[in-house]
Amino acid sequence: MLYNKKITIQYLGTKFAGWQIQAKGRTVQEEIQKALTKMYKTKINIIGSGRTDSGVHALGQTASYRTEIFLPADAVHKGLNSILPNDISIISVEDVPEDFHAQISAKSKTYQFRIYASRDRSAMHADRTWWVKANLDYKDIERYLKVFEGEHDFSSFCVQTSLKDNNIRTINSTKCFMEGDIICVEINGNGFIHNMVRIIVGTIVDAIKKGYSVEHLTNVLNAKDRNEAGPTAHAMGLYLKEVFY
Amino acid sequence: MLYNKKITIQYLGTKFAGWQIQAKGRTVQEEIQKALTKMYKTKINIIGSGRTDSGVHALGQTASYRTEIFLPADAVHKGLNSILPNDISIISVEDVPEDFHAQISAKSKTYQFRIYASRDRSAMHADRTWWVKANLDYKDIERYLKVFEGEHDFSSFCVQTSLKDNNIRTINSTKCFMEGDIICVEINGNGFIHNMVRIIVGTIVDAIKKGYSVEHLTNVLNAKDRNEAGPTAHAMGLYLKEVFY
Repeated sequence: MLYNKKITIQYLGTKFAGWQIQAKGRTVQEEIQKALTKMYKTKINIIGSGRTDSGVHALGQTASYRTEIFLPADAVHKGLNSILPNDISIISVEDVPEDFHAQISAKSKTYQFRIYASRDRSAMHADRTWWVKANLDYKDIERYLKVFEGEHDFSSFCVQTSLKDNNIRTINSTKCFMEGDIICVEINGNGFIHNMVRIIVGTIVDAIKKGYSVEHLTNVLNAKDRNEAGPTAHAMGLYLKEVFY
Repeated sequence: MLYNKKITIQYLGTKFAGWQIQAKGRTVQEEIQKALTKMYKTKINIIGSGRTDSGVHALGQTASYRTEIFLPADAVHKGLNSILPNDISIISVEDVPEDFHAQISAKSKTYQFRIYASRDRSAMHADRTWWVKANLDYKDIERYLKVFEGEHDFSSFCVQTSLKDNNIRTINSTKCFMEGDIICVEINGNGFIHNMVRIIVGTIVDAIKKGYSVEHLTNVLNAKDRNEAGPTAHAMGLYLKEVFY
């Protein structure tokens, strides 16, 4: 029998070379696997809901792993939080059915993007927001965001080198609100292409700064060409907020 | 003629050995003096409104400095923000009358103390809050805080080695509120003894956890003995919020 567990993870991405294990650089996946391996006394591999890039944060990343050894969920939860470094924390550990798979079973994800719009940079918000040196009204961003809701071909909004045959994704909902002096953009979708959220946010901010209309964004979307979109917003403004199953 | 300037500063104290220049360790005062010295091309010394300890943050620390050379306030503001490291930012630079002195002219200060009360630590709040592993209701804290309002001898609430002849201070106002999942305690007073805010917060949390009454805190205050008070709350929960002139 295999025991399957789902863990929900928060991390500050600033000092990580992203989620996924790689030859060089500190990664979240590696830190968690090392901690689990220590606890189970056997090599444990975990599957994340997806990768996050270098510098990207998570409020609710998920991962799953299967083991032959049984440890109670609560013991794993407490154990991980005592072993893991300060910039990773565990929100929950749950026993899940054997067929649960953190990546394949995921139905949708919500990303949050945080913008600090101000003349001056802020020591408090450094490494946790994208500093935009302009006056931005979150209500304007909300209007532009609506363009992206629904099913679209997002070829204009992904890293060119990662273009695949099918760049059609569905954005279920979007919202924009203030949290203190931070503008929070939230996008829930059934799937995201590489850099999609960051290019959407970068293109909206660019459009507002340049006085482009909302229709301009529709044209960019229809162009299916990365060159028509705006800059990629800073990785350290991006948070994987929640994965839905 | 001497030109006098007042600067308002934000900093994340995590990687600083405090405000004041010292033989070893990175300090906020030194970073700002180095930047000003570079801009004025002559040695500049600044006077802070007061020290902050290692790890303590500031949302609105103030400092002043006098120079024979004139630079426009806005140029100093922009220059500092371009030279200073990411964990220090300048909120404002103002020309002030020659007799203004960041420390002596200060009328009162507001400190904010941030508590994260939860079973688990949080990667997002690490180094920026005091993690208390308990359920705390901010309304309870507010009730206990009221004991400290007014003029009192705070000998029970300061580092023993820094006891002076006169530990009488006046707390003008206190409040406690939630900011997201963080409990914020705010204390405005005409002066603070070393560690006073941290010991007040530590003692209140200790009293709530142990079920002590509000009267217990009055007794601790009257005892004028540090041994009667609770533990010192973590430095990284403390923020110098504002200095009033």
